[in-house]
Amino acid sequence: MILVKLGGSVITDKSKKHVFKEGTMKRLAKEIKNSDEKVIVVHGAGSFGHILAKRYRLDKGFMNNKQISGVARVQSDVKNLNLMVVNSLIDEGIHAVSIPPSVVVECRNKKIEKINIDVFKKYLNLGLTPVTFGDVALDRKIGFCIVSGDLFMLELARVFKPKKAVFVSDVDGVYMDKKRMDKIDEKIFRNMKRKKTKIPDVTGSMYEKVKIGLKMSKFTKTIVINGNVNNRLGDALKGRNVVGTVIE
Amino acid sequence: MILVKLGGSVITDKSKKHVFKEGTMKRLAKEIKNSDEKVIVVHGAGSFGHILAKRYRLDKGFMNNKQISGVARVQSDVKNLNLMVVNSLIDEGIHAVSIPPSVVVECRNKKIEKINIDVFKKYLNLGLTPVTFGDVALDRKIGFCIVSGDLFMLELARVFKPKKAVFVSDVDGVYMDKKRMDKIDEKIFRNMKRKKTKIPDVTGSMYEKVKIGLKMSKFTKTIVINGNVNNRLGDALKGRNVVGTVIE
Repeated sequence: MILVKLGGSVITDKSKKHVFKEGTMKRLAKEIKNSDEKVIVVHGAGSFGHILAKRYRLDKGFMNNKQISGVARVQSDVKNLNLMVVNSLIDEGIHAVSIPPSVVVECRNKKIEKINIDVFKKYLNLGLTPVTFGDVALDRKIGFCIVSGDLFMLELARVFKPKKAVFVSDVDGVYMDKKRMDKIDEKIFRNMKRKKTKIPDVTGSMYEKVKIGLKMSKFTKTIVINGNVNNRLGDALKGRNVVGTVIE
Repeated sequence: MILVKLGGSVITDKSKKHVFKEGTMKRLAKEIKNSDEKVIVVHGAGSFGHILAKRYRLDKGFMNNKQISGVARVQSDVKNLNLMVVNSLIDEGIHAVSIPPSVVVECRNKKIEKINIDVFKKYLNLGLTPVTFGDVALDRKIGFCIVSGDLFMLELARVFKPKKAVFVSDVDGVYMDKKRMDKIDEKIFRNMKRKKTKIPDVTGSMYEKVKIGLKMSKFTKTIVINGNVNNRLGDALKGRNVVGTVIE
Protein backbone atom coordinates (compact mmCIF):
# COMPACT_ATOMS: atom_id res chain seq x y z
CA MET A 1 0.00 0.00 0.00
CA ILE A 2 1.15 3.56 -0.75
CA LEU A 3 0.08 6.75 0.98
CA VAL A 4 -0.42 9.73 -1.32
CA LYS A 5 -0.82 13.27 -0.02
CA LEU A 6 -2.16 15.71 -2.60
CA GLY A 7 -1.05 19.11 -1.35
CA GLY A 8 -3.59 21.91 -1.10
CA SER A 9 -1.25 24.02 -3.24
CA VAL A 10 -1.46 21.50 -6.09
CA ILE A 11 -5.21 20.87 -6.23
CA THR A 12 -6.32 24.42 -5.33
CA ASP A 13 -5.09 27.95 -5.90
CA LYS A 14 -4.04 28.71 -2.33
CA SER A 15 -4.13 32.46 -2.78
CA LYS A 16 -7.78 32.57 -3.98
CA LYS A 17 -10.84 31.29 -2.11
CA HIS A 18 -12.45 28.14 -3.50
CA VAL A 19 -10.48 27.64 -6.71
CA PHE A 20 -10.19 23.92 -7.52
CA LYS A 21 -7.58 22.93 -10.11
CA GLU A 22 -9.78 20.45 -11.94
CA GLY A 23 -7.37 19.71 -14.80
CA THR A 24 -4.44 18.98 -12.48
CA MET A 25 -6.63 16.77 -10.32
CA LYS A 26 -7.87 14.84 -13.35
CA ARG A 27 -4.28 14.14 -14.45
CA LEU A 28 -3.21 13.10 -10.94
CA ALA A 29 -6.25 10.80 -10.73
CA LYS A 30 -5.14 9.11 -13.98
CA GLU A 31 -1.63 8.66 -12.56
CA ILE A 32 -3.04 7.11 -9.38
CA LYS A 33 -5.33 4.85 -11.41
CA ASN A 34 -2.26 3.36 -13.15
CA SER A 35 -0.67 2.32 -9.85
CA ASP A 36 -0.39 -1.42 -9.21
CA GLU A 37 -0.40 -0.82 -5.47
CA LYS A 38 -3.41 -0.04 -3.31
CA VAL A 39 -3.48 3.62 -2.36
CA ILE A 40 -4.88 5.77 0.44
CA VAL A 41 -5.32 9.38 -0.63
CA VAL A 42 -4.99 12.32 1.76
CA HIS A 43 -5.51 15.83 0.47
CA GLY A 44 -4.91 19.29 1.85
CA ALA A 45 -7.66 21.85 2.33
CA GLY A 46 -5.90 24.56 0.34
CA SER A 47 -7.91 27.71 -0.19
CA PHE A 48 -11.12 25.84 0.79
CA GLY A 49 -9.94 25.62 4.37
CA HIS A 50 -7.08 27.87 5.37
CA ILE A 51 -8.53 31.29 4.54
CA LEU A 52 -11.72 30.97 6.66
CA ALA A 53 -10.02 28.82 9.31
CA LYS A 54 -7.57 31.66 9.84
CA ARG A 55 -10.29 34.31 9.92
CA TYR A 56 -12.22 32.39 12.62
CA ARG A 57 -8.95 31.39 14.37
CA LEU A 58 -10.10 27.78 14.44
CA ASP A 59 -6.52 26.62 15.07
CA LYS A 60 -6.82 28.09 18.58
CA GLY A 61 -9.73 25.87 19.59
CA PHE A 62 -12.92 27.22 21.17
CA MET A 63 -12.66 30.82 22.34
CA ASN A 64 -16.11 32.25 21.56
CA ASN A 65 -19.47 31.37 20.01
CA LYS A 66 -18.77 33.24 16.77
CA GLN A 67 -16.30 30.51 15.86
CA ILE A 68 -19.07 27.90 15.74
CA SER A 69 -20.39 29.34 12.50
CA GLY A 70 -16.79 29.11 11.25
CA VAL A 71 -16.57 25.43 12.19
CA ALA A 72 -19.73 24.73 10.16
CA ARG A 73 -18.59 26.78 7.17
CA VAL A 74 -15.03 25.44 7.01
CA GLN A 75 -16.23 21.83 7.38
CA SER A 76 -18.72 22.39 4.58
CA ASP A 77 -16.11 24.07 2.36
CA VAL A 78 -13.51 21.30 2.74
CA LYS A 79 -16.24 18.71 2.14
CA ASN A 80 -17.01 20.53 -1.08
CA LEU A 81 -13.36 20.24 -2.13
CA ASN A 82 -13.26 16.62 -0.98
CA LEU A 83 -16.31 15.78 -3.06
CA MET A 84 -14.62 17.22 -6.15
CA VAL A 85 -11.48 15.17 -5.44
CA VAL A 86 -13.51 11.99 -4.87
CA ASN A 87 -15.53 12.57 -8.05
CA SER A 88 -12.34 13.16 -10.08
CA LEU A 89 -11.05 9.81 -8.81
CA ILE A 90 -14.35 8.03 -9.50
CA ASP A 91 -14.41 9.49 -13.03
CA GLU A 92 -11.08 7.77 -13.70
CA GLY A 93 -12.39 4.44 -12.42
CA ILE A 94 -11.04 4.56 -8.87
CA HIS A 95 -13.62 3.44 -6.27
CA ALA A 96 -12.97 6.37 -3.96
CA VAL A 97 -14.71 6.71 -0.59
CA SER A 98 -14.57 9.81 1.57
CA ILE A 99 -13.54 9.46 5.23
CA PRO A 100 -13.92 12.86 6.94
CA PRO A 101 -11.68 13.53 9.97
CA SER A 102 -14.49 15.62 11.49
CA VAL A 103 -16.23 12.36 12.47
CA VAL A 104 -13.47 9.72 12.64
CA VAL A 105 -10.81 11.61 14.60
CA GLU A 106 -10.69 12.82 18.16
CA CYS A 107 -7.93 15.12 19.34
CA ARG A 108 -6.70 16.25 22.72
CA ASN A 109 -5.09 19.68 22.71
CA LYS A 110 -4.44 19.62 18.94
CA LYS A 111 -2.87 16.15 19.01
CA ILE A 112 -4.70 13.26 17.37
CA GLU A 113 -5.70 10.94 20.21
CA LYS A 114 -8.01 8.49 18.44
CA ILE A 115 -8.73 7.58 14.82
CA ASN A 116 -11.34 5.10 13.67
CA ILE A 117 -8.75 3.12 11.67
CA ASP A 118 -11.17 0.22 11.32
CA VAL A 119 -13.21 2.12 8.78
CA PHE A 120 -10.12 2.66 6.58
CA LYS A 121 -9.25 -1.04 6.78
CA LYS A 122 -12.76 -2.21 6.00
CA TYR A 123 -13.18 -0.01 2.93
CA LEU A 124 -9.70 -1.04 1.71
CA ASN A 125 -10.64 -4.70 2.14
CA LEU A 126 -13.81 -4.18 0.10
CA GLY A 127 -11.66 -2.81 -2.74
CA LEU A 128 -12.42 0.85 -2.16
CA THR A 129 -9.86 3.68 -1.97
CA PRO A 130 -10.15 5.77 1.22
CA VAL A 131 -9.81 9.52 0.73
CA THR A 132 -9.29 11.73 3.76
CA PHE A 133 -8.27 15.38 4.13
CA GLY A 134 -7.35 18.36 6.23
CA ASP A 135 -10.40 19.20 8.34
CA VAL A 136 -11.80 20.64 11.56
CA ALA A 137 -12.08 17.85 14.14
CA LEU A 138 -13.40 17.45 17.67
CA ASP A 139 -10.96 18.08 20.53
CA ARG A 140 -11.56 16.79 24.09
CA LYS A 141 -9.64 19.65 25.62
CA ILE A 142 -10.24 22.71 23.44
CA GLY A 143 -13.55 21.78 21.75
CA PHE A 144 -12.28 21.58 18.19
CA CYS A 145 -9.01 21.85 16.32
CA ILE A 146 -7.48 21.71 12.87
CA VAL A 147 -6.24 18.33 11.69
CA SER A 148 -3.88 18.80 8.78
CA GLY A 149 -3.57 16.30 5.97
CA ASP A 150 0.12 16.03 6.87
CA LEU A 151 -0.67 15.01 10.44
CA PHE A 152 -3.02 12.39 9.07
CA MET A 153 -0.23 11.03 6.85
CA LEU A 154 1.89 10.41 9.95
CA GLU A 155 -0.92 8.57 11.75
CA LEU A 156 -1.74 6.45 8.71
CA ALA A 157 1.97 5.62 8.21
CA ARG A 158 2.19 4.53 11.84
CA VAL A 159 -0.74 2.14 11.47
CA PHE A 160 -0.38 0.86 7.91
CA LYS A 161 3.42 0.89 7.52
CA PRO A 162 3.00 1.52 3.78
CA LYS A 163 5.64 0.72 1.15
CA LYS A 164 6.02 4.41 0.53
CA ALA A 165 4.52 7.80 1.33
CA VAL A 166 4.43 10.42 -1.41
CA PHE A 167 3.90 14.11 -0.68
CA VAL A 168 2.68 15.75 -3.89
CA SER A 169 3.57 19.45 -3.70
CA ASP A 170 3.90 22.32 -6.19
CA VAL A 171 7.71 22.37 -6.13
CA ASP A 172 10.38 19.84 -7.15
CA GLY A 173 11.16 18.93 -3.56
CA VAL A 174 12.52 20.54 -0.40
CA TYR A 175 14.84 23.49 -0.98
CA MET A 176 17.63 24.83 1.19
CA ASP A 177 19.30 28.07 0.12
CA LYS A 178 17.60 27.83 -3.29
CA LYS A 179 19.04 24.37 -3.90
CA ARG A 180 16.83 21.31 -4.12
CA MET A 181 17.90 18.60 -1.70
CA ASP A 182 17.98 14.99 -2.95
CA LYS A 183 17.76 13.81 0.60
CA ILE A 184 17.06 15.28 4.03
CA ASP A 185 17.90 13.65 7.35
CA GLU A 186 17.80 14.79 10.98
CA LYS A 187 21.16 16.51 10.73
CA ILE A 188 20.35 18.54 7.63
CA PHE A 189 16.98 19.39 9.11
CA ARG A 190 18.52 21.10 12.13
CA ASN A 191 20.05 23.62 9.72
CA MET A 192 16.75 24.46 8.01
CA LYS A 193 15.29 27.79 8.91
CA ARG A 194 11.59 28.17 9.24
CA LYS A 195 10.53 30.54 6.49
CA LYS A 196 7.51 32.74 6.91
CA THR A 197 5.07 32.80 4.02
CA LYS A 198 2.40 35.33 3.07
CA ILE A 199 -0.10 32.71 1.95
CA PRO A 200 -2.42 31.81 4.83
CA ASP A 201 -1.63 28.30 5.95
CA VAL A 202 -2.84 27.35 9.40
CA THR A 203 -1.10 23.99 9.33
CA GLY A 204 2.51 25.07 8.72
CA SER A 205 4.89 25.43 5.84
CA MET A 206 7.36 23.04 4.19
CA TYR A 207 9.35 23.11 7.45
CA GLU A 208 6.47 21.37 9.23
CA LYS A 209 6.14 18.87 6.39
CA VAL A 210 9.80 17.88 6.72
CA LYS A 211 9.36 17.55 10.49
CA ILE A 212 6.43 15.20 9.91
CA GLY A 213 8.33 13.38 7.13
CA LEU A 214 11.17 12.68 9.54
CA LYS A 215 8.75 11.21 12.08
CA MET A 216 7.24 9.12 9.29
CA SER A 217 10.62 7.73 8.26
CA LYS A 218 10.37 5.28 11.17
CA PHE A 219 7.47 3.62 9.39
CA THR A 220 7.97 4.17 5.67
CA LYS A 221 10.04 5.78 2.94
CA THR A 222 8.85 9.37 2.42
CA ILE A 223 9.36 11.43 -0.72
CA VAL A 224 8.33 14.99 -1.68
CA ILE A 225 7.67 15.49 -5.40
CA ASN A 226 6.19 18.05 -7.80
CA GLY A 227 2.62 17.23 -8.80
CA ASN A 228 2.55 19.90 -11.49
CA VAL A 229 4.98 17.90 -13.63
CA ASN A 230 3.45 15.18 -15.79
CA ASN A 231 3.91 11.62 -14.47
CA ARG A 232 6.06 12.49 -11.44
CA LEU A 233 3.39 10.94 -9.21
CA GLY A 234 2.71 8.13 -11.67
CA ASP A 235 6.41 7.24 -11.86
CA ALA A 236 6.86 7.44 -8.08
CA LEU A 237 3.91 5.06 -7.63
CA LYS A 238 5.51 2.63 -10.08
CA GLY A 239 8.74 2.63 -8.05
CA ARG A 240 10.75 4.58 -10.64
CA ASN A 241 13.33 7.14 -9.60
CA VAL A 242 11.91 10.65 -9.85
CA VAL A 243 13.09 14.19 -9.17
CA GLY A 244 12.21 14.94 -5.56
CA THR A 245 13.45 14.92 -1.98
CA VAL A 246 13.68 11.73 0.03
CA ILE A 247 13.21 12.24 3.77
CA GLU A 248 14.84 9.65 5.93
CA MET B 1 -34.39 18.39 21.25
CA ILE B 2 -36.48 17.55 18.19
CA LEU B 3 -35.64 15.05 15.45
CA VAL B 4 -36.54 16.18 11.94
CA LYS B 5 -36.53 13.82 8.98
CA LEU B 6 -36.63 15.57 5.62
CA GLY B 7 -38.02 12.98 3.23
CA GLY B 8 -36.21 12.31 -0.03
CA SER B 9 -39.51 12.99 -1.83
CA VAL B 10 -39.63 16.52 -0.41
CA ILE B 11 -36.08 17.69 -1.04
CA THR B 12 -35.55 15.85 -4.35
CA ASP B 13 -37.64 14.83 -7.33
CA LYS B 14 -37.66 11.09 -6.68
CA SER B 15 -38.53 10.17 -10.25
CA LYS B 16 -35.56 12.00 -11.82
CA LYS B 17 -31.88 11.44 -11.04
CA HIS B 18 -30.14 14.20 -9.08
CA VAL B 19 -32.84 16.86 -8.95
CA PHE B 20 -32.53 18.86 -5.72
CA LYS B 21 -35.53 21.00 -4.74
CA GLU B 22 -33.54 24.02 -3.70
CA GLY B 23 -36.47 26.34 -3.09
CA THR B 24 -38.32 23.87 -0.86
CA MET B 25 -35.14 23.18 1.08
CA LYS B 26 -34.51 26.89 1.59
CA ARG B 27 -38.02 27.35 3.02
CA LEU B 28 -37.70 24.31 5.29
CA ALA B 29 -34.31 25.62 6.49
CA LYS B 30 -35.98 28.93 7.45
CA GLU B 31 -38.69 27.02 9.34
CA ILE B 32 -36.06 25.00 11.22
CA LYS B 33 -34.08 28.16 11.97
CA ASN B 34 -37.13 29.60 13.78
CA SER B 35 -37.35 26.63 16.15
CA ASP B 36 -36.60 27.34 19.80
CA GLU B 37 -35.55 23.74 20.32
CA LYS B 38 -32.26 22.16 19.30
CA VAL B 39 -32.70 19.99 16.25
CA ILE B 40 -31.01 16.99 14.65
CA VAL B 41 -31.72 16.76 10.93
CA VAL B 42 -31.92 13.47 9.05
CA HIS B 43 -32.62 13.49 5.33
CA GLY B 44 -33.49 10.86 2.79
CA ALA B 45 -31.36 10.11 -0.26
CA GLY B 46 -34.20 10.55 -2.74
CA SER B 47 -33.19 10.34 -6.37
CA PHE B 48 -29.52 10.84 -5.38
CA GLY B 49 -29.45 7.40 -3.82
CA HIS B 50 -32.28 5.07 -4.68
CA ILE B 51 -31.94 4.90 -8.46
CA LEU B 52 -28.27 3.79 -8.56
CA ALA B 53 -28.55 1.79 -5.32
CA LYS B 54 -31.27 -0.24 -6.98
CA ARG B 55 -29.31 -0.70 -10.21
CA TYR B 56 -26.28 -2.04 -8.29
CA ARG B 57 -28.52 -3.96 -5.87
CA LEU B 58 -26.66 -2.48 -2.93
CA ASP B 59 -29.53 -3.42 -0.60
CA LYS B 60 -28.50 -7.08 -1.04
CA GLY B 61 -24.99 -6.55 0.38
CA PHE B 62 -21.85 -7.79 -1.38
CA MET B 63 -22.53 -10.20 -4.24
CA ASN B 64 -19.90 -9.24 -6.83
CA ASN B 65 -17.07 -6.80 -7.50
CA LYS B 66 -19.12 -4.68 -9.90
CA GLN B 67 -21.08 -3.41 -6.92
CA ILE B 68 -17.98 -1.75 -5.45
CA SER B 69 -18.08 0.96 -8.08
CA GLY B 70 -21.75 1.40 -7.12
CA VAL B 71 -20.85 1.82 -3.45
CA ALA B 72 -18.41 4.59 -4.37
CA ARG B 73 -20.85 6.31 -6.74
CA VAL B 74 -23.88 6.18 -4.45
CA GLN B 75 -21.87 7.40 -1.45
CA SER B 76 -20.55 10.28 -3.51
CA ASP B 77 -24.04 11.13 -4.86
CA VAL B 78 -25.71 11.20 -1.46
CA LYS B 79 -22.81 13.28 -0.10
CA ASN B 80 -23.47 15.72 -2.92
CA LEU B 81 -27.12 15.99 -1.83
CA ASN B 82 -26.06 16.20 1.82
CA LEU B 83 -23.71 19.08 1.05
CA MET B 84 -26.55 21.00 -0.61
CA VAL B 85 -28.79 20.39 2.42
CA VAL B 86 -26.03 21.46 4.83
CA ASN B 87 -25.28 24.58 2.79
CA SER B 88 -28.98 25.51 2.65
CA LEU B 89 -29.07 25.28 6.45
CA ILE B 90 -25.84 27.27 6.84
CA ASP B 91 -27.19 29.95 4.49
CA GLU B 92 -30.11 30.45 6.89
CA GLY B 93 -27.77 30.77 9.88
CA ILE B 94 -27.93 27.21 11.20
CA HIS B 95 -24.50 25.82 12.16
CA ALA B 96 -25.02 22.54 10.36
CA VAL B 97 -22.45 19.74 10.48
CA SER B 98 -22.58 16.64 8.31
CA ILE B 99 -22.32 13.21 9.99
CA PRO B 100 -22.19 10.52 7.28
CA PRO B 101 -23.47 7.03 8.24
CA SER B 102 -20.86 5.53 5.90
CA VAL B 103 -18.23 6.18 8.59
CA VAL B 104 -20.15 6.38 11.88
CA VAL B 105 -22.41 3.34 11.55
CA GLU B 106 -21.68 -0.35 11.50
CA CYS B 107 -24.37 -2.85 10.61
CA ARG B 108 -24.73 -6.60 10.93
CA ASN B 109 -26.97 -8.17 8.31
CA LYS B 110 -28.72 -4.87 7.50
CA LYS B 111 -29.39 -4.04 11.16
CA ILE B 112 -27.57 -1.10 12.74
CA GLU B 113 -25.25 -2.63 15.34
CA LYS B 114 -23.13 0.36 16.33
CA ILE B 115 -23.39 4.14 15.91
CA ASN B 116 -20.79 6.63 17.03
CA ILE B 117 -23.35 8.61 19.05
CA ASP B 118 -20.60 10.48 20.83
CA VAL B 119 -19.91 12.55 17.75
CA PHE B 120 -23.57 13.67 17.59
CA LYS B 121 -23.51 14.62 21.28
CA LYS B 122 -20.24 16.54 21.02
CA TYR B 123 -21.29 18.61 18.04
CA LEU B 124 -24.66 19.34 19.70
CA ASN B 125 -22.85 20.47 22.85
CA LEU B 126 -20.67 22.82 20.82
CA GLY B 127 -23.85 24.43 19.43
CA LEU B 128 -23.76 22.75 16.03
CA THR B 129 -26.70 21.02 14.32
CA PRO B 130 -25.90 17.43 13.24
CA VAL B 131 -27.18 16.45 9.82
CA THR B 132 -27.20 12.80 8.82
CA PHE B 133 -28.82 10.93 5.94
CA GLY B 134 -29.68 7.73 4.12
CA ASP B 135 -26.38 6.20 3.01
CA VAL B 136 -24.41 3.05 2.18
CA ALA B 137 -22.74 1.79 5.36
CA LEU B 138 -20.34 -1.00 6.32
CA ASP B 139 -21.86 -4.34 7.33
CA ARG B 140 -19.93 -6.97 9.33
CA LYS B 141 -21.83 -9.81 7.75
CA ILE B 142 -22.63 -8.80 4.18
CA GLY B 143 -19.89 -6.22 3.51
CA PHE B 144 -22.12 -3.19 3.07
CA CYS B 145 -25.79 -2.30 3.31
CA ILE B 146 -28.24 0.54 2.93
CA VAL B 147 -29.01 2.57 6.04
CA SER B 148 -32.19 4.53 5.51
CA GLY B 149 -32.80 7.90 7.08
CA ASP B 150 -35.89 6.39 8.73
CA LEU B 151 -33.83 3.68 10.43
CA PHE B 152 -31.50 6.39 11.68
CA MET B 153 -34.48 8.27 13.15
CA LEU B 154 -35.34 5.22 15.25
CA GLU B 155 -31.79 4.86 16.56
CA LEU B 156 -31.49 8.58 17.37
CA ALA B 157 -34.90 8.50 19.11
CA ARG B 158 -33.74 5.54 21.21
CA VAL B 159 -30.62 7.39 22.36
CA PHE B 160 -31.78 11.00 22.64
CA LYS B 161 -35.42 10.50 23.67
CA PRO B 162 -36.35 13.75 21.92
CA LYS B 163 -39.42 15.85 22.71
CA LYS B 164 -40.79 15.01 19.30
CA ALA B 165 -39.86 13.39 15.98
CA VAL B 166 -41.22 14.96 12.79
CA PHE B 167 -41.30 13.09 9.49
CA VAL B 168 -41.53 15.67 6.72
CA SER B 169 -43.10 13.97 3.69
CA ASP B 170 -44.82 15.14 0.49
CA VAL B 171 -48.33 14.24 1.65
CA ASP B 172 -50.57 15.47 4.46
CA GLY B 173 -49.96 12.38 6.56
CA VAL B 174 -50.58 8.64 6.41
CA TYR B 175 -53.56 7.58 4.31
CA MET B 176 -55.77 4.52 4.57
CA ASP B 177 -58.37 3.97 1.83
CA LYS B 178 -57.80 7.52 0.56
CA LYS B 179 -58.55 8.98 3.99
CA ARG B 180 -55.91 10.77 6.01
CA MET B 181 -55.54 9.32 9.49
CA ASP B 182 -55.21 11.73 12.41
CA LYS B 183 -53.65 8.99 14.45
CA ILE B 184 -52.25 5.50 13.87
CA ASP B 185 -51.65 2.91 16.54
CA GLU B 186 -50.67 -0.78 16.52
CA LYS B 187 -54.23 -1.92 15.93
CA ILE B 188 -54.90 0.35 12.97
CA PHE B 189 -51.51 -0.56 11.56
CA ARG B 190 -52.35 -4.24 11.36
CA ASN B 191 -55.08 -3.31 8.86
CA MET B 192 -52.75 -1.36 6.60
CA LYS B 193 -51.87 -3.05 3.36
CA ARG B 194 -48.41 -2.65 1.92
CA LYS B 195 -48.82 -0.80 -1.35
CA LYS B 196 -46.37 -1.33 -4.16
CA THR B 197 -45.02 1.83 -5.78
CA LYS B 198 -43.39 2.37 -9.16
CA ILE B 199 -40.86 4.89 -7.87
CA PRO B 200 -37.60 3.13 -6.95
CA ASP B 201 -37.22 3.20 -3.20
CA VAL B 202 -34.84 0.67 -1.72
CA THR B 203 -35.74 1.54 1.85
CA GLY B 204 -39.48 0.94 1.83
CA SER B 205 -42.66 2.93 1.41
CA MET B 206 -44.92 4.72 3.87
CA TYR B 207 -45.79 1.31 5.34
CA GLU B 208 -42.19 0.95 6.54
CA LYS B 209 -42.23 4.49 7.90
CA VAL B 210 -45.28 3.74 10.02
CA LYS B 211 -43.64 0.53 11.24
CA ILE B 212 -40.60 2.54 12.31
CA GLY B 213 -42.79 5.30 13.75
CA LEU B 214 -44.55 2.74 15.96
CA LYS B 215 -41.21 1.50 17.26
CA MET B 216 -40.20 5.11 17.89
CA SER B 217 -43.34 5.80 19.91
CA LYS B 218 -41.69 4.09 22.88
CA PHE B 219 -39.18 6.94 22.98
CA THR B 220 -40.93 10.00 21.59
CA LYS B 221 -44.04 11.44 19.98
CA THR B 222 -43.89 10.89 16.23
CA ILE B 223 -45.78 12.88 13.60
CA VAL B 224 -45.91 12.70 9.79
CA ILE B 225 -46.56 16.03 8.06
CA ASN B 226 -46.50 17.62 4.60
CA GLY B 227 -43.31 19.60 3.95
CA ASN B 228 -44.69 21.11 0.75
CA VAL B 229 -47.14 23.22 2.72
CA ASN B 230 -45.82 26.51 4.10
CA ASN B 231 -45.05 26.48 7.84
CA ARG B 232 -46.30 22.97 8.58
CA LEU B 233 -42.79 22.07 9.79
CA GLY B 234 -42.29 25.46 11.43
CA ASP B 235 -45.58 25.15 13.32
CA ALA B 236 -44.88 21.54 14.35
CA LEU B 237 -41.48 22.64 15.72
CA LYS B 238 -43.21 25.38 17.73
CA GLY B 239 -45.55 22.83 19.29
CA ARG B 240 -48.65 24.05 17.43
CA ASN B 241 -51.29 21.62 16.20
CA VAL B 242 -50.81 20.89 12.52
CA VAL B 243 -52.45 18.74 9.85
CA GLY B 244 -50.68 15.37 9.92
CA THR B 245 -50.73 11.89 11.35
CA VAL B 246 -49.59 11.15 14.87
CA ILE B 247 -48.11 7.69 15.34
CA GLU B 248 -48.40 6.30 18.83
